[in-house]
Amino acid sequence: MDNELEAGLPDRDPIGHAGFLIRRVHQISVALFADECEALDITPTQFGIMLAIAAQPGIDQSTAAEERGVDRATMASIVARLEGNGYIRRVPGRADRRQKLLSLTAAGKKLLAKAQAPVERATERALEPLSPRDRKALMRLLEKLVDGGNHHGRAKLRLK
Amino acid sequence: MDNELEAGLPDRDPIGHAGFLIRRVHQISVALFADECEALDITPTQFGIMLAIAAQPGIDQSTAAEERGVDRATMASIVARLEGNGYIRRVPGRADRRQKLLSLTAAGKKLLAKAQAPVERATERALEPLSPRDRKALMRLLEKLVDGGNHHGRAKLRLK
Repeated sequence: MDNELEAGLPDRDPIGHAGFLIRRVHQISVALFADECEALDITPTQFGIMLAIAAQPGIDQSTAAEERGVDRATMASIVARLEGNGYIRRVPGRADRRQKLLSLTAAGKKLLAKAQAPVERATERALEPLSPRDRKALMRLLEKLVDGGNHHGRAKLRLK
Repeated sequence: MDNELEAGLPDRDPIGHAGFLIRRVHQISVALFADECEALDITPTQFGIMLAIAAQPGIDQSTAAEERGVDRATMASIVARLEGNGYIRRVPGRADRRQKLLSLTAAGKKLLAKAQAPVERATERALEPLSPRDRKALMRLLEKLVDGGNHHGRAKLRLK
């Protein structure tokens, strides 16, 4: 065990403390994203969906939603919004007409390119309190939690 | 530097990846809370507010909201809900009648006691993928992020 790491930490956190910290870090992350991306009028979830579409043009709407952990109703409203703003195109699948295949328009690609710098600044500001080593450790721990959480069937998560 | 820790990690995460992981971990945490606390019909934020009131009976509504990082409108609806359910009492301050002082009712204290075990189970399930040492490391990193994020004035956070 690493005594230096544990020094000063209580043996037991107050009940619900982990969830509380996660909520607050999420809140900070969303607030900084909104602050940096104000001019672009895009949310983190919309941005994530656009990233998924950029990585796999023609991706099915349900697959994109599952990959980003977005529920069906939220996805429908995000897609309607992005389509209404002219950022994505939605066409029915050839084999299965009920499928909706998504791709970015030229305007969508432009928006995604313009968003890179502000999203990077938002991330930089959110992670600012951590050293490079701590940032890597955090990413490793969060990835473990996400991987592990995917198996919680009862939690009704639609994660990849 | 700890080479073992860094082995296999890319130098640079995809854009927005940190925010995405944080959102997903938050989503897992909320889903597991809902799953474990279904019978109690209480949200993580309501639970947190009740904890704050239990720790400081007679706490002012705005102070409780700030301590838990809850915005004014959300706090108003949470308090109305908790009061409507008979879990909290709200009285005007003596010195400043515009203040609303909150305390738990007997039913509120009972609910909080009943919630302890399911909230602990939800936390345990959310953190299950991590070793005890990793859990401590995660808490330390999240606390650093929360402490650091409090100073982001532009982010319009109302954190303590």
